[in-house]
Amino acid sequence: MLRQERVIVESVYPQLNGGDFFIKRVQDESIKVYADVLPDGHDVIQAEILFQHETEKKPQAIRMQHQGNDVYYETFKVTQQGFYTYQVRGWVDYALNWQHGIEVKIKDGQHVVSELQDGIQYLKYIKKKGNTNEKAYAKELIVYFEDEGNYDKAIEAAASTALRNLFLKYPQRILANSSKKFKVYVDRKKANFSTWYEFFPRSAAEEPDKHGTFKDCERLLPKIAEMGFDTLYFPPIHPIGEKNRKGKNNTVDAKEGDSGVPWAIGSRHGGHKSIHPELGTEEDFKHLIGKAMDLGIEVAMDIAYQAAPDHPYLTTNPEWFRKRPDGTIQYAENPPKKYQDIVNFYFENTEFKALWEELLSVVMHWADLGIKMFRVDNPHTKPYYFWNWLIGEVKKKHPDALFLAEAFSRPKVMQQLAKQGFSQSYTYFTWRVNKWELTEYLTELTQTDMKEYYRPNFWPNTPDINPYHLQGANEAMHLIRYALAATLSGNLGIYGPVFEYMVTEPYPNKEEYLDCEKYEIRHWDWSIENKITHVISKINIARKNHPALQQTNNLRFCHIENDNLMAFYKWNDDKTNEVVVVISLDSHHMQQGTVQLPMQELAFSHEEPLHLMDVITENEYDWYDEWNFVELTPSLPFHIFHIKR
Amino acid sequence: MLRQERVIVESVYPQLNGGDFFIKRVQDESIKVYADVLPDGHDVIQAEILFQHETEKKPQAIRMQHQGNDVYYETFKVTQQGFYTYQVRGWVDYALNWQHGIEVKIKDGQHVVSELQDGIQYLKYIKKKGNTNEKAYAKELIVYFEDEGNYDKAIEAAASTALRNLFLKYPQRILANSSKKFKVYVDRKKANFSTWYEFFPRSAAEEPDKHGTFKDCERLLPKIAEMGFDTLYFPPIHPIGEKNRKGKNNTVDAKEGDSGVPWAIGSRHGGHKSIHPELGTEEDFKHLIGKAMDLGIEVAMDIAYQAAPDHPYLTTNPEWFRKRPDGTIQYAENPPKKYQDIVNFYFENTEFKALWEELLSVVMHWADLGIKMFRVDNPHTKPYYFWNWLIGEVKKKHPDALFLAEAFSRPKVMQQLAKQGFSQSYTYFTWRVNKWELTEYLTELTQTDMKEYYRPNFWPNTPDINPYHLQGANEAMHLIRYALAATLSGNLGIYGPVFEYMVTEPYPNKEEYLDCEKYEIRHWDWSIENKITHVISKINIARKNHPALQQTNNLRFCHIENDNLMAFYKWNDDKTNEVVVVISLDSHHMQQGTVQLPMQELAFSHEEPLHLMDVITENEYDWYDEWNFVELTPSLPFHIFHIKR
Repeated sequence: MLRQERVIVESVYPQLNGGDFFIKRVQDESIKVYADVLPDGHDVIQAEILFQHETEKKPQAIRMQHQGNDVYYETFKVTQQGFYTYQVRGWVDYALNWQHGIEVKIKDGQHVVSELQDGIQYLKYIKKKGNTNEKAYAKELIVYFEDEGNYDKAIEAAASTALRNLFLKYPQRILANSSKKFKVYVDRKKANFSTWYEFFPRSAAEEPDKHGTFKDCERLLPKIAEMGFDTLYFPPIHPIGEKNRKGKNNTVDAKEGDSGVPWAIGSRHGGHKSIHPELGTEEDFKHLIGKAMDLGIEVAMDIAYQAAPDHPYLTTNPEWFRKRPDGTIQYAENPPKKYQDIVNFYFENTEFKALWEELLSVVMHWADLGIKMFRVDNPHTKPYYFWNWLIGEVKKKHPDALFLAEAFSRPKVMQQLAKQGFSQSYTYFTWRVNKWELTEYLTELTQTDMKEYYRPNFWPNTPDINPYHLQGANEAMHLIRYALAATLSGNLGIYGPVFEYMVTEPYPNKEEYLDCEKYEIRHWDWSIENKITHVISKINIARKNHPALQQTNNLRFCHIENDNLMAFYKWNDDKTNEVVVVISLDSHHMQQGTVQLPMQELAFSHEEPLHLMDVITENEYDWYDEWNFVELTPSLPFHIFHIKR
Repeated sequence: MLRQERVIVESVYPQLNGGDFFIKRVQDESIKVYADVLPDGHDVIQAEILFQHETEKKPQAIRMQHQGNDVYYETFKVTQQGFYTYQVRGWVDYALNWQHGIEVKIKDGQHVVSELQDGIQYLKYIKKKGNTNEKAYAKELIVYFEDEGNYDKAIEAAASTALRNLFLKYPQRILANSSKKFKVYVDRKKANFSTWYEFFPRSAAEEPDKHGTFKDCERLLPKIAEMGFDTLYFPPIHPIGEKNRKGKNNTVDAKEGDSGVPWAIGSRHGGHKSIHPELGTEEDFKHLIGKAMDLGIEVAMDIAYQAAPDHPYLTTNPEWFRKRPDGTIQYAENPPKKYQDIVNFYFENTEFKALWEELLSVVMHWADLGIKMFRVDNPHTKPYYFWNWLIGEVKKKHPDALFLAEAFSRPKVMQQLAKQGFSQSYTYFTWRVNKWELTEYLTELTQTDMKEYYRPNFWPNTPDINPYHLQGANEAMHLIRYALAATLSGNLGIYGPVFEYMVTEPYPNKEEYLDCEKYEIRHWDWSIENKITHVISKINIARKNHPALQQTNNLRFCHIENDNLMAFYKWNDDKTNEVVVVISLDSHHMQQGTVQLPMQELAFSHEEPLHLMDVITENEYDWYDEWNFVELTPSLPFHIFHIKR
């Protein structure tokens, strides 16, 4: 193929796997695009970004700047939810090239009559494309350029900024060359900034030995709102399987009255589109959703695509499950372990299209009811392309739907799910405790390609994970873990009330909870308030007030010469909000250290002090130097400093 | 689109720009391919490389190994010139997965009758695909699996290596998923390993004041062969333009008798397919090519796509050149400079296809005559896609054609030319003098993506460049520069005889030669031999004997605590040949230092000494330790140690 273009456009950044996957942003975020744009020879070139929302008919163009080394860059802002495409286009700009040439020759004292003649073609283009004034200007210049009598006027005009600006405004883009189109998916802002609270609605009853209901949950909403949470996530609320039901503490055989595992979905009461009868009705659920909304809380739902052996699907659609050669059903297993309360969907079956459609209809059912946040259980045990398709289909109708991938798996598995479309992802934060571990992990999340597609959601604990460092841990450790999650990540969540009530007793020798609510109903005195609930409230208020904390990627660690202290600087995109966070990782002793401020990023030059306010204590400080002494005690083991300009 | 595949294959390495460009190898080199291959869930997967030469009907498959972290890798060898494709394919291997499951359950003491039943389907596949013995074996196993009376035999066979090997041999590859196909172009070995000697044939006459001829060149061949060069490169040998001819030392107006610039091609005597009459005839040239070949020397030709103002093309095809508005011809310029002895081709013209075809026919003309190595002058001032097309077209007929890009331009421009198809490239080596500069540059060439497509050719000097560090330099500096080029890079070249005769006088204040042969004929006493010619011979013999020096990328710098000493370790792909090189960068003083050997790469464990032989002096050494003292003097400022095992 003979291609006459002279400009190469390549290495467009950001991009994932050569454009095989879309990158992600939220509304009003920016994308700084870089590309290598280079012509042969020495001609003057121009480059631009073309970007276009999927609902728009034409792309918008924005001219790029040359950074040096043939790299061009510019930033564009995305405002609407949904897909945008972006691509880079470059061309030899013959008009600007002509102007550059004649300018150099004029400075060199050359007589440029022939060059002026040559320039008339570019003026004619302006005369054709410009507005009335511009047409007149171009016409006037043509007269000068043609007539040697006006030589002085002509050469002045030829090298003028006015003419340059017209050439920039009306580019001819002859033989322009474009990169491929890359995609970015834009979510609502909550994809970057959300504060989750998880509890088991069946444990919400006021009185002991009663099954909690959605009405009980409603009673707790003000408390959750006061603590500053904006997302309320329930484990599955569907009918719990009765066949092969598990008992307390994950015992194999349930006793009479054992309430079962909410993730073993489906019984004679219904399946994934039904509600567990003891929790209430769909109407109750809708009422709860509405009440929560009034308090600024969105209800998030669990999507767990698996079935109890008595799920209606096993009767209506037996072809969706794998049979053994003897005709019996194949229970879930991870050899040598068997999970006889669970049957997995058989994604390899030939009837997979109907299965996919049915599973899609589950999400659609709840989305139509008003749920737009989904925590997806074990997504890594279902095909990646299934999620890609399902999330895409849901978002066509509900672009504000968000999906949190609950995969605690290998790094590339978790990354792949995020690439295939999940809006948020669980992370290894739950087990990252030391300074070097946290620093290394956050560097990976925020400084590699992961920042373009992997939105972390930091959970200090979950019903599945009672991490060793929280088992028997004191108040300070709980504050540390919450503060870390809440300041390092835009998204976080806790499983309560065990977290704030410091219910940390483990199942012996495991990273699990004793008497875990996964297997039984617990009763809590939900009226208790304590230091942890108060500090959580304060931190969450700080998160709401400070956009620097509503994102994850603008993060720079500060040097501090104490391995028990971490310090970092965060800011929002336009740097109208900046915080410096210092956290002690020691829950037992006072720690002191000296924080080194990132002087250049802070534009701090010693001329006047940096004013800091601790957003929790409201104490104010003036820092005069690059290095600043801090001291933290277990009673309040962190500072979140707002930098006041 | 609904895609049922469960395995993801991505991040295949090596690849360039997502497969937009091919990578490069030479015959008998290997390609180590890596890919991320991951299933959902925990099933056993397999991955393989499929690779195929363009002349083959079917790809070959080679199973990959798991490195950990979901990365699979394997190596394949390329033997034929031309394009190969390679891609990675992965699948859940249900047979192996079944075997893994039953093995774990057997170890766990479970009774696996149902699992054995399940396995029969995989045995049936072997029964269908296997050879006679394998069919019988599968048949026997089916009997065991079906009949509980043979349970013990059945479970032994189920978990056996024999069965595993059959599953590996006959994979079903159900729902396999493949990466895209990537391309590698395989050149003959000379693309990686060539030793160039450049001289001006017109300066080859025995007597002064005579124009050298091809016959004179023939006389010099034994000398060049003795110095160990395998490539003889001439500046353009075509008729030199007579109009606007330049004079000595690049003066604008040639005097009577000035011989002109060989790169100003074309006159009444012909153009790019003709020979400058004073050099001889095409027959003479063919004779020279044959004589050179007899001595193991290939003649390389200069391709300079530009025309003198009296080139026949200006008459036959005026449409290939740009005219100014006044109808006069547009000479080459780089404002404010004008080059009135040169006219550039106008690649934007609408008749470009005919132009491209004509330029292709120039290379074809000489390739058909037996020239397979082309040094391309200023390729960066012609469109990238033109070169991509031209080189591709030439290689269709002459896969052994090699193109050296003479672009001393910006990094990305030089890289782009290599990506578009040039076989070798000039480099910044010419100006890299200090240890840190050389180390940084070689690290870029050998440790980044450049190693996949950019084959450096190191030139200590060229007719265009008399670098400051060689101006007035002593013998030691010449030895240092040659030794660096010859050991750091598989390809190198010198412009002689000024290099070995230390003719270094510059044009005042420029990195150029005084009385440069570009503008005039020089006379040399070619019979002179000196220390430089002798050492060059020895180094070139070492290069011929040691495959570690016939490539560039297997390079590891060794720590040596002296900024005037460089040390590095090189090896060939299968490590049957290894060298350690130590070079002093100080041409005036003795330098001492202690080299740290790369113990692991050398598999050196102190148990017995490492035997080294200096390939120049043939002195032998035993090194007993990781750190080893070396001392170099300007009289022979380098060691090339062959490691004798």
